[in-house]
Amino acid sequence: MDASFSHITIIGVGLLGGSIGQAARRRWPNIHIAGVGRRESSLQDAMDVGAIDSMHLAARECVDKSDLVILATPVGAFETILRDIQPHLRSDALVTDVGSTKQEVVCVAERVLGAGGAFVGSHPMAGTEKKGPRFSDPDLLPGAMCILTPTAATPKARVARIERFWADLGMTTCRMTPAEHDRAVARVSHLPHIAAAMLMLIPEDADLNIAATGLRDTTRLAGGDPEMWRDITTSNREQITAALDALDNLSREFRAMLDDGDARTIESFFVRAKQRRDSTLGRENGG
Amino acid sequence: MDASFSHITIIGVGLLGGSIGQAARRRWPNIHIAGVGRRESSLQDAMDVGAIDSMHLAARECVDKSDLVILATPVGAFETILRDIQPHLRSDALVTDVGSTKQEVVCVAERVLGAGGAFVGSHPMAGTEKKGPRFSDPDLLPGAMCILTPTAATPKARVARIERFWADLGMTTCRMTPAEHDRAVARVSHLPHIAAAMLMLIPEDADLNIAATGLRDTTRLAGGDPEMWRDITTSNREQITAALDALDNLSREFRAMLDDGDARTIESFFVRAKQRRDSTLGRENGG
Repeated sequence: MDASFSHITIIGVGLLGGSIGQAARRRWPNIHIAGVGRRESSLQDAMDVGAIDSMHLAARECVDKSDLVILATPVGAFETILRDIQPHLRSDALVTDVGSTKQEVVCVAERVLGAGGAFVGSHPMAGTEKKGPRFSDPDLLPGAMCILTPTAATPKARVARIERFWADLGMTTCRMTPAEHDRAVARVSHLPHIAAAMLMLIPEDADLNIAATGLRDTTRLAGGDPEMWRDITTSNREQITAALDALDNLSREFRAMLDDGDARTIESFFVRAKQRRDSTLGRENGG
Repeated sequence: MDASFSHITIIGVGLLGGSIGQAARRRWPNIHIAGVGRRESSLQDAMDVGAIDSMHLAARECVDKSDLVILATPVGAFETILRDIQPHLRSDALVTDVGSTKQEVVCVAERVLGAGGAFVGSHPMAGTEKKGPRFSDPDLLPGAMCILTPTAATPKARVARIERFWADLGMTTCRMTPAEHDRAVARVSHLPHIAAAMLMLIPEDADLNIAATGLRDTTRLAGGDPEMWRDITTSNREQITAALDALDNLSREFRAMLDDGDARTIESFFVRAKQRRDSTLGRENGG
């Protein structure tokens, strides 16, 4: 199958940007993949692992040749980048991103590039707590979900082309409004990340000597990139606050059950959580 | 090396009881391991996987022959079991357990068997969210930590024999008071378990369709046995309440940082959590 795009610029070649580059290279051996980054050493790593074909410290060096531009930096940098590349974009270029929040991102992108313009928001739900292009992996994306967040203004043909791009890399795609997206990911991704960090900060130093695989698994996300998570959480403040409120409410309920010594209700709390997990996440790979 | 014990009774041959049986069998081919359970089918499973040599629906059928008795049921059943076996114990028998809480357990055991009597509390920090003897595994224990919780009344020679038993099965051992134990495990084990269950109950059903590996890992513990976790949480009420208070305080701090739009403080929150994890749990196996 021919590629929908012939020249891709990836801005920010970290774990996810690098993985997209490697997956696109494997799928379409003949397209050109330009990588843009702040540090030459990272760009060189991305070249070494075969994620990009050319390296650039300034996006304007390569975006004028691209029919697809992918923003893969922390979301806090998007507005500056979009303003920087906007004058240099080809008239037929599409721009997408891999950011974990969408309301602010889509709003900024439509403001800079125009509503009904080049931008279609994407959120590939794939990643690890590792950082940097050396950990990038063309198998990170296949099988994972990519959420597209078009607005009423986004031309349908552009959504379809971006959707096809992610599907060609092996991802399952779905569409949500930016607001629906931010509400849902606050609960299935952002809250678990914040909870993992909180759980890591509660024990005393000595307590960690007796920690077993339970704490290790539960806090894996706390090993993630602080700069990325700073941007994600500040960019989805309202929904994360609502999710933390939900956590507080459950915590208060649980303490009330303990105070009452209400063993039957406590058991049913754990039963509900287990049934929910077993019938959804627990199905896929025995764990 | 000769076994310290020649006839072991394991009461409750689930995942952990079965794993202890298999590990003891591998270490000492000639000892007899008697299994006690409520259901014949479970006991048969434990026989089939080689965890026990004989199966019994009543502990009194076999404890009179044992020099070591291990309680491996949910902790809520311990008092009844101890009262049931007490008249039948050999005068030289030691009794230990694998319960996840220790203050209540040790208090009950010393009340029933006598302070300075047969009981030495143990907590092998090993397990998975799986349940039942079919998932038992002789390699579950080696490398994991086993906490012993003797009191001032416990004869030192008895502590040393139980310590040696777990060490012979490949575990690392340490000693804590029952109170120190309950405070520490509330933070490194019980709170993460409750948090996993809460995180599983917060998303809407549809939200779970877009959940990725992050939520799956963070909530793995929520797949655990509700009856066991009912007993653990009600038996460590005070320390779990304190740990939930600590979670609430961090949650309140985090929301205040979000309200203030304080990006620098938010980043340093994630940095502290990451440094703490990278320098402890993150070291051992890259995750």
